[in-house]
Amino acid sequence: MSPMAQKRVILFCLALISTIALSIVVAAPPATVPGIEFTAEGKLKLPTDYRHWMYVGASVTPNDLNRGAALFPEFHSVYIDPESFAEYEKTGKYRDGTVVVKELASVGGKEEPSGKGYFMGGFNSLEVAIKDSKRFKDEPGYWAYFSFEYKPTAEKEAGPHATVACNKCHQDSAEEDFVFSQDYPVLRASKPQSK
Amino acid sequence: MSPMAQKRVILFCLALISTIALSIVVAAPPATVPGIEFTAEGKLKLPTDYRHWMYVGASVTPNDLNRGAALFPEFHSVYIDPESFAEYEKTGKYRDGTVVVKELASVGGKEEPSGKGYFMGGFNSLEVAIKDSKRFKDEPGYWAYFSFEYKPTAEKEAGPHATVACNKCHQDSAEEDFVFSQDYPVLRASKPQSK
Repeated sequence: MSPMAQKRVILFCLALISTIALSIVVAAPPATVPGIEFTAEGKLKLPTDYRHWMYVGASVTPNDLNRGAALFPEFHSVYIDPESFAEYEKTGKYRDGTVVVKELASVGGKEEPSGKGYFMGGFNSLEVAIKDSKRFKDEPGYWAYFSFEYKPTAEKEAGPHATVACNKCHQDSAEEDFVFSQDYPVLRASKPQSK
Repeated sequence: MSPMAQKRVILFCLALISTIALSIVVAAPPATVPGIEFTAEGKLKLPTDYRHWMYVGASVTPNDLNRGAALFPEFHSVYIDPESFAEYEKTGKYRDGTVVVKELASVGGKEEPSGKGYFMGGFNSLEVAIKDSKRFKDEPGYWAYFSFEYKPTAEKEAGPHATVACNKCHQDSAEEDFVFSQDYPVLRASKPQSK
């Protein structure tokens, strides 16, 4: 090999090493979200402050339309942590670290002066979905799912559900990246290409 | 009247005048809320940024339960401006200047993997309630009500509804200070005495 060829090989190797080093530095860890903490054993602590997050929409699966025992009883109010939502508004993507919270409330009444329908009663439970490529590297899409029952008192910690319990259904039926954005108009209205 | 008695009367009058003057200075004007503006003619401009406000709950009065034409079609998502909400958390009162926004969305679907029920479609319109003791001094409770239709494009301005159109029903049936807090669990959970 000529000295010139040797020099080219050395330069190529240096460039390659720099590129690899740079990509390691650039690969950001999953974002952390205030109010979201794990125990040393990897259980999720009951989230705090999520009612001040970004509300993206609601749905209702009432017991009376689900043979008296809805899978999710009954109103679903869905929130996304504010920084991940701001990122979604810019990119249309759920960033690594995104937390989606679904707080469930019972049906409290079925008629008001505004009409017949479903009106919220008290809170039942909290469902949490977290996308984290480090902590949940083995879950499809890196999404893990947790539940906290409120009765008789709110559970303080919860381990992730088995993949087949929640992730599978989100993988099969959610419109974008395991999120049922098809049911949440604030998400649809906030996605960059819809503006 | 003795000089001493005269002096007492003068001191009393001065104290009274000071008290009245102080009460005029202390009586704060209604709070202003970012994103809420009026035209010179007193019409409300279409509010902005309310989707980042405090969500307090949702209800649904679907067309199919209201003879095909719900009074409010169909999902109601209710927000309160953040500073008025923070005041409510402290005092349990809606401060002068409070703005409550109700964004209406159609029913988009009636079944998802989570069960049978009602799922949100697109946005229809915006309803706004404002409590303002100066601007709406003649309205019961100082609350005035506005509507903005979104179709074909969002209306840019709206005058207040006649008292009988909205205020009357809120006066008769809303649980506290013209607000249907009975249907919004975040309000119930945030009121000081419930903590």
